[in-house]
Amino acid sequence: MERVTVQSNVLKANQETAAENRRLFQGEGMLAINLMSAPGAGKTTLLEATIRRLRDRYRLGVIEGDLQTDLDAQRIRALGVPSHQITTGTVCHLDARMVARALAEFPVQGLDLLVIENVGNLICPASYDLGESLRVVICSVAEGAEKPKKYPVMFHKADVVLLNKTDLAAASGVDLRELETNVREVNPKATVFAVSCKSGAGLDNWLAWLRGAIESCTTADVARR
Amino acid sequence: MERVTVQSNVLKANQETAAENRRLFQGEGMLAINLMSAPGAGKTTLLEATIRRLRDRYRLGVIEGDLQTDLDAQRIRALGVPSHQITTGTVCHLDARMVARALAEFPVQGLDLLVIENVGNLICPASYDLGESLRVVICSVAEGAEKPKKYPVMFHKADVVLLNKTDLAAASGVDLRELETNVREVNPKATVFAVSCKSGAGLDNWLAWLRGAIESCTTADVARR
Repeated sequence: MERVTVQSNVLKANQETAAENRRLFQGEGMLAINLMSAPGAGKTTLLEATIRRLRDRYRLGVIEGDLQTDLDAQRIRALGVPSHQITTGTVCHLDARMVARALAEFPVQGLDLLVIENVGNLICPASYDLGESLRVVICSVAEGAEKPKKYPVMFHKADVVLLNKTDLAAASGVDLRELETNVREVNPKATVFAVSCKSGAGLDNWLAWLRGAIESCTTADVARR
Repeated sequence: MERVTVQSNVLKANQETAAENRRLFQGEGMLAINLMSAPGAGKTTLLEATIRRLRDRYRLGVIEGDLQTDLDAQRIRALGVPSHQITTGTVCHLDARMVARALAEFPVQGLDLLVIENVGNLICPASYDLGESLRVVICSVAEGAEKPKKYPVMFHKADVVLLNKTDLAAASGVDLRELETNVREVNPKATVFAVSCKSGAGLDNWLAWLRGAIESCTTADVARR
């Protein structure tokens, strides 16, 4: 009972900090994405492919979350995009306060798109609002078709679900249509894209959608000013 | 601070219940395995392959942990092995009390091997002792070679690490030797097996090792009596 109360207080405090982060992002007319998945589903690889296609047109920035190492932040910087690594130690998710602290060191003013890559975990990150505009969840086809049923909270709260590694579908014995049906059963409103970051298949659809989201975010901001 | 204290109390209480579970398992001369991995790394598929090869020789039982669904328990029962499903709701790991409650409903007396399949999560389950004799961690090759570095606690505490889905290594662009080196850097003492539950490659080594562990557990028990 004590544990439940503490958890509830933690989530309430998180919500307040998330609201502050959101005001900052909205004030800048910036699209802020909370990118989540299980370990190894391809978050950083998707980011690399996305950066290569958008960096000439938009100002991009990335906040990386991992238990240990700054391997992911290095990969992003190698593409000429500013990146800040949060290492959480043993904490299984990012929270709004960690992001607020990162924002104090990592200037995001003037960005069109900020991606916050969460810790690889298909459960806990779903409970923590970071102040993002959109939640994007990646599911690797190689994880199996039943994952949306087994991890419903993460999929239920997603705005976009990317079914990645479609190139491995046949070798993994996974039916892509069954996986998509399972996503839609848990979350009929999510926008779903099937992609392969390796072959590039399906990335055009994701990128067209993302450009639209960035533009409408900037437009809405201009209209507010 | 309050949160840290509560977490510390939770882990202390967990340790006490884990010790009770462990006494029960040891009293029965039973090998109890805590099987952990990220979502979709192949825990249940490994269990199915293991059951098919051992069920004629040993008395087996399985406790399944998932947020939702009893899909995994159904798969185990279909092979003629008793199985009990724990659904945790939103809780991201099994704890010793959940297992103790399951043991009250699910008779394990007389088993040679009990496998407790944890919730798919490469972080949180590592912190909770369930009373197991051994911790077995599965890492899917498709998750990428750097996972042991990024999720060190899970790998550091493993007795056995199974590198699964070796059949997907080439298609995933993952160097199996690099993955194994990364495991050994985090945990030089772990026993490591490279396997493909799909093709069957490497399973003989894992099964020979497991038979040895079951036998020595039973022998030790007989010696104690």
